Amino acid sequence: MTLPSPRAVPGLQPSRRSAVAPFIVMDVMEHAARIEAAGGRVMHLEVGQPAAPAPLTARRAAAAALEAGQVTYTAALGIPALRARIARHYEEIHGVAIDPERVVVTNGSSGGFILAFLALFEAGDRVAIAAPGYPPYRHVLSALGCEPVLIETRAEDRHALTPERLIEAHREAPLKGVLVASPGNPTGTMMDRVALTALHACARDLGLAFVSDEIYHGLDYAFPAVSAVEIADDVTVINSFSKYFCMTGWRVGWMVVPPGLSRTMERLQQNLSISVPTLSQIAAAAAFDGREEMDKVKAGYEENRRILTAGLPAVGLSHFLPADGAFYLYADVSAFTGDSAAFATRMLDAVHVATTPGVDFDPFRGKQFLRLSYASSAADMREAMERIGTFLKGE
Amino acid sequence: MTLPSPRAVPGLQPSRRSAVAPFIVMDVMEHAARIEAAGGRVMHLEVGQPAAPAPLTARRAAAAALEAGQVTYTAALGIPALRARIARHYEEIHGVAIDPERVVVTNGSSGGFILAFLALFEAGDRVAIAAPGYPPYRHVLSALGCEPVLIETRAEDRHALTPERLIEAHREAPLKGVLVASPGNPTGTMMDRVALTALHACARDLGLAFVSDEIYHGLDYAFPAVSAVEIADDVTVINSFSKYFCMTGWRVGWMVVPPGLSRTMERLQQNLSISVPTLSQIAAAAAFDGREEMDKVKAGYEENRRILTAGLPAVGLSHFLPADGAFYLYADVSAFTGDSAAFATRMLDAVHVATTPGVDFDPFRGKQFLRLSYASSAADMREAMERIGTFLKGE
Repeated sequence: MTLPSPRAVPGLQPSRRSAVAPFIVMDVMEHAARIEAAGGRVMHLEVGQPAAPAPLTARRAAAAALEAGQVTYTAALGIPALRARIARHYEEIHGVAIDPERVVVTNGSSGGFILAFLALFEAGDRVAIAAPGYPPYRHVLSALGCEPVLIETRAEDRHALTPERLIEAHREAPLKGVLVASPGNPTGTMMDRVALTALHACARDLGLAFVSDEIYHGLDYAFPAVSAVEIADDVTVINSFSKYFCMTGWRVGWMVVPPGLSRTMERLQQNLSISVPTLSQIAAAAAFDGREEMDKVKAGYEENRRILTAGLPAVGLSHFLPADGAFYLYADVSAFTGDSAAFATRMLDAVHVATTPGVDFDPFRGKQFLRLSYASSAADMREAMERIGTFLKGE
Repeated sequence: MTLPSPRAVPGLQPSRRSAVAPFIVMDVMEHAARIEAAGGRVMHLEVGQPAAPAPLTARRAAAAALEAGQVTYTAALGIPALRARIARHYEEIHGVAIDPERVVVTNGSSGGFILAFLALFEAGDRVAIAAPGYPPYRHVLSALGCEPVLIETRAEDRHALTPERLIEAHREAPLKGVLVASPGNPTGTMMDRVALTALHACARDLGLAFVSDEIYHGLDYAFPAVSAVEIADDVTVINSFSKYFCMTGWRVGWMVVPPGLSRTMERLQQNLSISVPTLSQIAAAAAFDGREEMDKVKAGYEENRRILTAGLPAVGLSHFLPADGAFYLYADVSAFTGDSAAFATRMLDAVHVATTPGVDFDPFRGKQFLRLSYASSAADMREAMERIGTFLKGE
């Protein structure tokens, strides 16, 4: 059947607000896939996902639920047993009693950001975020009508947002909120208790909502990660089972919201999602019993981190941010290039090591940086170090 | 540890845009659960979800994937094999060739609405929807800054939006889009090919984006449901595995978008969701091989529909909308009450039959209506008819 062309219809122009940037890392992954299809062996230092599967406890719980038959909608805020288990996690790890009513189960951390931004901010509100930072922070804020206010972090501030910079941005035009990430992506840097407490106090003084992305908690090497809920309860914490628990494709995460905001989140979630995938919730509740297994995975990342932090200076890449946590190292490659994207492409073509150029994360100085993910094996890390050494000799 | 009160912080007031209404059906379900906890046996005609599990083919595919180990992120638009299988479904059922590039896998139909509304509409845009209708249409539009324009449907229009009503609403203030649902929730009514074609032609003339919610496709009794993609390709179709395929808790659905809009959807999905739950996508691709099993479930709904359409008039409820499809019957109870919510509560308390009052779906005339879901068993339907008869004798 012949159908009329859609070109003529004005309603089919995509909206301005949907004009968000794609992830450049996706292009890198496609490029790497082409090399592999042609028989090349690529070292994957570009992907931000664990190579290990979910804990056995989680997989068994999901299999049992699947066997039992029906997989129905759950309560919008999540299965009560999972919300209670997450609350207990804060008691166990952070020594803070959290009312399970404050826990909201989400579609990964992605779902948490949508709920948080809609619940805390109006269209037009200015929200401070750090550059470099996770690209969807600014893209999701923009798509939801908010204005992301990028604050460049500095080495002298240990690559964190500070009260001074927050006040500065607030003076230019009033902010409504601030979002922090520790450990951060792409930097791997962490904020210690003093830094986090000072920034929170400043945000409170300015009357700003405080959102803390804690998705890389559990993967801390330099010192124990501090949760914002240890500092105050007027914070919105966003977390996920994707990283420490190796459950990326399950798409399940959680928030801890300020007392009194749960009902708002519930109404939003009912309308925006109905509920979070049921098997994933069941698996997530059981994942907490798999910490021993996950701690071994973490020990692997620590070994990888040692290989990179020792190996990179040896091949000539001695400038990188403190690799405190997560599984990322953010390396300054400005001694070799003024365009890290072209540099990453050359390296991928020449020695088949895939990395992510900083422009995804930082519109200001991204061209000087590369993100190296160390979520895969130690053997791959050693091999990658050798290959990068070979490549840099030719640059 | 003593924490300061969050009350003092201005940033913690929920945003105005998050002030969406809750689902009243949730309150009904909680009320029913209390009766059951006290030993009562409730007939559930309130829930909009199938009693049957997903097709065995789907459950087996998920179990095999789980056994195989890793559950990673997928491509943002969905696993290619699933997108191709969905495209083939349109060839098989509707005789239309759909390029798999136009298929976007989503987090249930809920995820589809978020993507569609963000991609097609700016904040402030007016979008026409029918009343009665599915509550999240208006709530999600509002939360995303759009203005839902409710058009009351009429018996003389067979309870559908018509070109005349659309033009009227567009004259009041320009519209940017129109959303139709056939079969509809809560009404169960369907638009035939003539009605759908006329409305689409009108929308095109007015330059409006045309969104077609086809989540209840496959559950058509009066005549075969027509997909908007049979009529034109400048339409955005939203569908899901939740209803016909009985996969509510899996949270997986799809869209067919106009040629050229896939890239916009991909960028939005990368940022808003990363990807859709992997096991659910694998199960969904296999669900199409379980149509024989699902057609038996559908035959059960047809039997239930016969029991209701014959039984209700016999007990005095002879006014209801044409029960064309889905598993809902929308009954006019104005002969008995001016407040269907209070009426539903009395009926639930008196004879333990749970139904959903129309106010969830229609702010104008909802007080005259009850939605009866016939997604459970024939035995329950017969029992419910008897109990409703007993109740109405006392009203």
